[in-house]
Amino acid sequence: MIPATPMIGQGFDAHRFAEPGSGRPLWLAGLFWPVPEGADAVQAARYEGIEGDSDGDVAAHALIDALLSAAGLGDIGSLFGVGADAHGAGMHGTDMLRETVAHLTEHGFTPVSASVAVIGNRPKIGTRRAEAETALSEAVGCRVSVTATTTDRMGFTGRGEGVAAIANALVVRD
Amino acid sequence: MIPATPMIGQGFDAHRFAEPGSGRPLWLAGLFWPVPEGADAVQAARYEGIEGDSDGDVAAHALIDALLSAAGLGDIGSLFGVGADAHGAGMHGTDMLRETVAHLTEHGFTPVSASVAVIGNRPKIGTRRAEAETALSEAVGCRVSVTATTTDRMGFTGRGEGVAAIANALVVRD
Amino acid sequence: MIPATPMIGQGFDAHRFAEPGSGRPLWLAGLFWPVPEGADAVQAARYEGIEGDSDGDVAAHALIDALLSAAGLGDIGSLFGVGADAHGAGMHGTDMLRETVAHLTEHGFTPVSASVAVIGNRPKIGTRRAEAETALSEAVGCRVSVTATTTDRMGFTGRGEGVAAIANALVVRD
Repeated sequence: MIPATPMIGQGFDAHRFAEPGSGRPLWLAGLFWPVPEGADAVQAARYEGIEGDSDGDVAAHALIDALLSAAGLGDIGSLFGVGADAHGAGMHGTDMLRETVAHLTEHGFTPVSASVAVIGNRPKIGTRRAEAETALSEAVGCRVSVTATTTDRMGFTGRGEGVAAIANALVVRD
Repeated sequence: MIPATPMIGQGFDAHRFAEPGSGRPLWLAGLFWPVPEGADAVQAARYEGIEGDSDGDVAAHALIDALLSAAGLGDIGSLFGVGADAHGAGMHGTDMLRETVAHLTEHGFTPVSASVAVIGNRPKIGTRRAEAETALSEAVGCRVSVTATTTDRMGFTGRGEGVAAIANALVVRD
Repeated sequence: MIPATPMIGQGFDAHRFAEPGSGRPLWLAGLFWPVPEGADAVQAARYEGIEGDSDGDVAAHALIDALLSAAGLGDIGSLFGVGADAHGAGMHGTDMLRETVAHLTEHGFTPVSASVAVIGNRPKIGTRRAEAETALSEAVGCRVSVTATTTDRMGFTGRGEGVAAIANALVVRD
């Protein structure tokens, strides 16, 4: 079979960290990041969750926009809605990714590869990158790569106010 | 025909919103965003334009850099110049895109798909995404997707100082 | 030969400029940017280098992450380490790119095209873009495009605190 020319998509997302003491669980790059056992208050504050109607997983959200735009099927807002009553409210990033891929499949598109760069001080993605890539790749059904970097104490990610993610994706039409 | 391996490009742009009362028209993602009829001063301020030598359409500009870099033909500054006397001064984003694609065609390149993520508080791209995608796709001559997101009140886009866009594109050589 | 469907990667990096008077050499986009002869202190300050364990070349680093993620081979931190004792400490961006491509080759991947958007006030990449593209393309072994833009005096790049780069890449598996 002659492979079709793939189509490209770009995605971006950024969310704010919850206030210290919120007790909001931290989900990022398809993984739950629990407070380490025996952590003191300062250490625990590094595992405060990310705000958002869903679980706040900006890596998953950026990938969703990359996949939807590659297929020309709108964006995360048009598929999942916005606000506390939205269809996507309370959903985990990997479940949203699965629903996104089902939507692509219905329209005759198949993801062939995707990649996301996570930008922020915490959590340290590199310590669990293989696990994150497995979780996201299983959700999308193709290889998803994860890289991680900081902004060297500059800007909102550097000050630890929030976390951002830039993603791209290739899909083919059946 | 065996499809050629496409070549990839990345583009980014950011511009500042004009001061309230400037009367500068708002152009973004290939569309004019008029002040709604009956808007009061506060509402009208949400439709102040974007600064720039051209119409300030960062989505179009990021796409132009993505297309030019995919073809290895420089960037928006080398094609259109910089400053009030530049060749691109006063041009609309879609006209600049058309000229960009003509430049690619002259050099034997054809865009196959492109995508842009618009980052900012306003205007609400989602309300007119299909229209924006049509305007940009007609200008580029292939499917162009548009997604939109905010930075959750963080950074210069979150504070409403300006708007940014990240784009990617695939082109093939004839 | 039927071309294989390429795989896509995304990369991002940002670094802080060194303090005025640091004497740190400025390396960016694969090039050394010397202080112009006869420059006064104010002009010379525009050629202060970029901080980092290596030469601080964010364009090269973003490209490395784009290439590694396209091949699913980790990121710059996993290949070169982090900190003053890291394997990559003191290395130039083009040497790091060469080592990255050797790593891809060992694993059966070949870069087919890559692109990087440099975001910052200085140095003026456009004045030496062809030279930068040649340096980076020779290091990667395929066409690498460079575009450059500012953030219009907004954010950490606009205030001149540092410089950022967004890259993408396509690779094929042998």
